[in-house]
Amino acid sequence: MKRTVFFISDGTGITAEALGRSLLAQFEGIQFELITQPYINNAEKAHKLVQLINQTAEKDGSRPLLIDTIVDQSIRSIISLSNAMTMDVFSTFLAPLEEELGAHSSYSVGKTHALTKEKEDTYKARIDSVHYALDNDDGARTHHYDQADLILVGVSRCGKTPTCIYMALQFGVRAANYPITEDDLLDSELPKALRPYRHKIFGLTIDPERLASIRNERRPDSKYSSLKQCIREVEEVENLYRRHRIDFIDSTHHSIEEISTRILSQAGIERRFSPR
Amino acid sequence: MKRTVFFISDGTGITAEALGRSLLAQFEGIQFELITQPYINNAEKAHKLVQLINQTAEKDGSRPLLIDTIVDQSIRSIISLSNAMTMDVFSTFLAPLEEELGAHSSYSVGKTHALTKEKEDTYKARIDSVHYALDNDDGARTHHYDQADLILVGVSRCGKTPTCIYMALQFGVRAANYPITEDDLLDSELPKALRPYRHKIFGLTIDPERLASIRNERRPDSKYSSLKQCIREVEEVENLYRRHRIDFIDSTHHSIEEISTRILSQAGIERRFSPR
Repeated sequence: MKRTVFFISDGTGITAEALGRSLLAQFEGIQFELITQPYINNAEKAHKLVQLINQTAEKDGSRPLLIDTIVDQSIRSIISLSNAMTMDVFSTFLAPLEEELGAHSSYSVGKTHALTKEKEDTYKARIDSVHYALDNDDGARTHHYDQADLILVGVSRCGKTPTCIYMALQFGVRAANYPITEDDLLDSELPKALRPYRHKIFGLTIDPERLASIRNERRPDSKYSSLKQCIREVEEVENLYRRHRIDFIDSTHHSIEEISTRILSQAGIERRFSPR
Repeated sequence: MKRTVFFISDGTGITAEALGRSLLAQFEGIQFELITQPYINNAEKAHKLVQLINQTAEKDGSRPLLIDTIVDQSIRSIISLSNAMTMDVFSTFLAPLEEELGAHSSYSVGKTHALTKEKEDTYKARIDSVHYALDNDDGARTHHYDQADLILVGVSRCGKTPTCIYMALQFGVRAANYPITEDDLLDSELPKALRPYRHKIFGLTIDPERLASIRNERRPDSKYSSLKQCIREVEEVENLYRRHRIDFIDSTHHSIEEISTRILSQAGIERRFSPR
């Protein structure tokens, strides 16, 4: 049976959705239909949403689930009139927190994501890191590696670029990336541009079959995307990592979030700021 | 008084931290020190963490707060021995969910972030969107605009690039961006490359003082970064938006998350997949 799940917020809904997804992932046999409703920030929107929830309940033949991070109590009380099972994050955790801290919460909307004066520096650091990742993508420039927190290496299309960009956006880490080419693999030394930065290098590897499938979408039926070529490159790049004692991880079965978090954790790199 | 907060997970810790931050943001007067501890996935790490928590409690003179998304109950029970106030997300919400769904949760670790076979297509769509954003950044190419879900426009350094990249990573949306230059502003028509895609265009604007401050870091004391120039460009780009009835939002006081979510919501753009 299908169950519909609403992630509801008066802000972006990102927190409600992240939390909701990690909860739902624990129920494997059930099919969920997910609906995110951000910016439910006035009574009119709330009443409309209640209608939608009730219609869904009727259509599904079962009440929807709500994961709700709405801060404003008057809006929450409208939502609570709907025919749904509600997991109300704020009312669940804020009361014990208030007691522990001996303070009243301000119950104000969108606090984490709104940009206050103090956060502007963080914002700039974040943007700077994104631009750093873009400017130092794919070995395009190597003379700014002194400013890198990390230089991610690996064969073409193993996932370097999205990982670097994610680390910039989420953690403000300055991550350059350098593609290990066939020429580099013939050499027993590290590529010249990397040698002075041995301590900043981290490697990615990937299952050759998956690499071939990714490369095939880019250049179908080429030597570049052949399984034989992918097997050879992956084998040799892993040898290179071992020879130079470069730490590396396998990106095949992990999301960008996992790869990024694991790299920072293994390499002991401090975030420049914390997410969101 | 300072309170230390631990975000604890057997996965990346991203959910624990997102949730924790939105809760703590409700307490304005209190100074929090935040520590994220991902990958607490065995008893040894858990015992070490308990030590750290207890030492922190002693040093602070108050017990730390824990936001905990650990799935494994044996690890959670070790953590529960520490001298801390614990907000245990899984045990709070999983029990009522199990009852509602009439199913047992699998209590398995890192489910949301792990990459299962079914998720590989989503992964590819995500990577494709990131590469699309990079290839179509800053007006570099305009002949792939037919494939864009959205073309973000605005003056130089108003926040287009990070917004497009975030939308790609988080929502799989294909967002190109095009910088509105002084030449474009002299013309009463839309820039030629944009004309066929009028319906895909969304505008960004920004407070001129903030723009000047951002530009000054890039090219100090230039005409480009002068307040006078920034005031003029912002005024004219907003006129251009109004003239062509282009929807736009102000990026000044919003985070990248907020800007992205609002644009998708206002423009009615469907996500290609949902985050994480």
